[in-house]
Amino acid sequence: MGKTIAEKIFDAHLVDEPFGDVSVLKLDRVFCHEITTPTAIQDLVARGKDRVFDPEKIKAVIDHVTPAKDSKTAMQGKILRDWAKRHKIKDFFDIGHNGVCHAIFPEKGFARPGFTIIMGDSHTCTHGAFGAFAAGVGTTDLEVGILKGVCTFKKPETYKIEIVGTLQNGVYAKDIILKVIQELGVNGATNMVIEFRGNIVDEMNMDQRMTLSNMAVEAGATSGICLPDMTTVEYLWDFIKDEHASKQEALETFSTFNSDEDAVYANQKTIDVSDLEPLTTFGYKPDNVKPVSQMKGTKIDQVYIGSCTNGRLEDLRIAAKVLEGHTINENVRGIVSPATPKIFSQALEEGIIKIFMESGFCVTNPTCGACLGMSNGVLADGEVAAATTNRNFNGRMGKGGMVHLMSPATAAASAITGEISNSSLFCK
Amino acid sequence: MGKTIAEKIFDAHLVDEPFGDVSVLKLDRVFCHEITTPTAIQDLVARGKDRVFDPEKIKAVIDHVTPAKDSKTAMQGKILRDWAKRHKIKDFFDIGHNGVCHAIFPEKGFARPGFTIIMGDSHTCTHGAFGAFAAGVGTTDLEVGILKGVCTFKKPETYKIEIVGTLQNGVYAKDIILKVIQELGVNGATNMVIEFRGNIVDEMNMDQRMTLSNMAVEAGATSGICLPDMTTVEYLWDFIKDEHASKQEALETFSTFNSDEDAVYANQKTIDVSDLEPLTTFGYKPDNVKPVSQMKGTKIDQVYIGSCTNGRLEDLRIAAKVLEGHTINENVRGIVSPATPKIFSQALEEGIIKIFMESGFCVTNPTCGACLGMSNGVLADGEVAAATTNRNFNGRMGKGGMVHLMSPATAAASAITGEISNSSLFCK
Repeated sequence: MGKTIAEKIFDAHLVDEPFGDVSVLKLDRVFCHEITTPTAIQDLVARGKDRVFDPEKIKAVIDHVTPAKDSKTAMQGKILRDWAKRHKIKDFFDIGHNGVCHAIFPEKGFARPGFTIIMGDSHTCTHGAFGAFAAGVGTTDLEVGILKGVCTFKKPETYKIEIVGTLQNGVYAKDIILKVIQELGVNGATNMVIEFRGNIVDEMNMDQRMTLSNMAVEAGATSGICLPDMTTVEYLWDFIKDEHASKQEALETFSTFNSDEDAVYANQKTIDVSDLEPLTTFGYKPDNVKPVSQMKGTKIDQVYIGSCTNGRLEDLRIAAKVLEGHTINENVRGIVSPATPKIFSQALEEGIIKIFMESGFCVTNPTCGACLGMSNGVLADGEVAAATTNRNFNGRMGKGGMVHLMSPATAAASAITGEISNSSLFCK
Repeated sequence: MGKTIAEKIFDAHLVDEPFGDVSVLKLDRVFCHEITTPTAIQDLVARGKDRVFDPEKIKAVIDHVTPAKDSKTAMQGKILRDWAKRHKIKDFFDIGHNGVCHAIFPEKGFARPGFTIIMGDSHTCTHGAFGAFAAGVGTTDLEVGILKGVCTFKKPETYKIEIVGTLQNGVYAKDIILKVIQELGVNGATNMVIEFRGNIVDEMNMDQRMTLSNMAVEAGATSGICLPDMTTVEYLWDFIKDEHASKQEALETFSTFNSDEDAVYANQKTIDVSDLEPLTTFGYKPDNVKPVSQMKGTKIDQVYIGSCTNGRLEDLRIAAKVLEGHTINENVRGIVSPATPKIFSQALEEGIIKIFMESGFCVTNPTCGACLGMSNGVLADGEVAAATTNRNFNGRMGKGGMVHLMSPATAAASAITGEISNSSLFCK
């Protein structure tokens, strides 16, 4: 009987099967940020277990509130910084070199096909775009991961989602994942891995696949996985070229993880996106999704372009293309956070930062801040945001605030008009 | 008997002299930001006095914590924003268009020779660089100012400081004002206006004069004033050309405020800066000043270049010149906050932003945040900062943190070495 990519990754990392459907897996990566890891560090220290299983496999970044907004967040950063230094974790990204974890870690080549990855962060599933099993975990799992390099999971069932058809102009990966979440519901893939398949996924670049995988958790999934292919190899090549004779050889090696033709899926669905319109959320759950065309007249106070979902170079390019030559509505505050310093630099070189500023956007340093209402763009009570982020929970971007999730193109168009708007209005 | 510029401005704005040496002055400007003005607004509303004396003369900006870091600061911004809208205050600078008050208001031409200006902010004295009487006030004075366009002051005595000589390379306006504060002490000019005179001041551009006037309050002064001259006229020309027949005519008009030869000063001091070395502070008071050369070996954790003292274009240019071709020390976090969007844009055009980023600096959006430990760079307990800001009070940039005040050149050099260092090390 054939196996899915998730099952193959589990098999390759199996350390123990203590009972039933529970697997203890060897970890290739433990990713850390300054909000959840300091709690784990302090507990390990208190237990006399201030050790790490392998400093080469641990990667850490200060990204949620950076630069620090108060003494508490300054101390969280310091705990992570001192710990990285103490344990010779050389891949630690501090202020000036730091970016949103799920953007900077892939950019550095840390996520690879067939890897097992954990992090104390809900959107760790992003790294599944590389054909990895990547999952967000709680503090206890994180502590065990840091100390022993293992993590315990239920054996994954897989929900296969085939995305097929031909995309219309102005429709992006973000619209597709909103469609998927709408179809599945916020609990539709609970305790499952979503395997993203189909010609549309095959044609996507890595930025787009990351947008897709990033929001798998919003349908309840433990992880979202795309099969590694030549696009994956090309993206990673600079980091892996010493380990592989050729790109073709790398592809063949990675492909051993690919799901077999006769793999067994717990559920599957094919979504034809040929007629898909730009989408947005309207309520407090990510499956409250409507076409943008049905949200006309929804006034917004703030537009936020950034986050681990849509703060990458392609996202900024798309938004800038809509914004170029326009100024944003006088009733809208525009905020853009390039997700990493490299993305910021590239956007600067390409004139994208200039376009954002000339249109009236505030350009912040790379940070997660606004997405989860932690800094750099918190909403006041009663305010409405159009955001390229991943969660519209009640109060997510600030108590009493409403968040509409959408693509960078839709967010840029909405910034210009002051209400939720289709980017086709500004097509060039 | 001759008069000082401060006395002449008082005479020209006198509404009432209720008793003794107390003057009620007509105000030309009431400047507002989102930390102190919302308290005044809420009190005026509670008293049924939600009015403004003249929306054209009130200028408002969100600058201290921007974009908002939490619900409280989001609400402070909203109160200011709603008030500006309600009272048709058209010069309100919101996220995307906002910058540090004492940088953006001069940039917009709002500070003029002979003006009276108040604001609920200690460093309002900055605008004295334009030959204005500008003073920070408390909430009650701010409320009266907003409502009636007047403010009550004690008649000013003036401390005349003549700054003479020839400046050495690597010595800047910041070093001069630190020298002045060292000589006067933190209470040396209490209840006085400092009048900055001498060939060095005459030769300064407006950015430099603002650095000088900005820190007058750190010697206890109510305001720091530079006499208006052709440099002032040139800076303001685009804003005043419709009001004056020629630059010469403008200069003559403004010169009527200039101190008379036989003006009477409460105190005076001449400081020859020909032998001045770069200076820095070493304790918790701005008059704890030492030559940088005597601070060798003082390790730093963070370098901050920005603020109303030294976040202007010239400051960034100077720092970038030192940084170019270098990367900052691995134990140092570098943060630069261009003080306004215009400064950010110009720095971007000139390649300065790129130099900062390539050297390892984090470039934030324009904000006051880090300078007063409110956001975007708060220190953790025990950390040490080298900063181009104006106050080194205990805990100013974060509880338990130490701040060393210095010029942008010294701050940039210190970022490279990881300890307080003279920029001459990196002279090109």
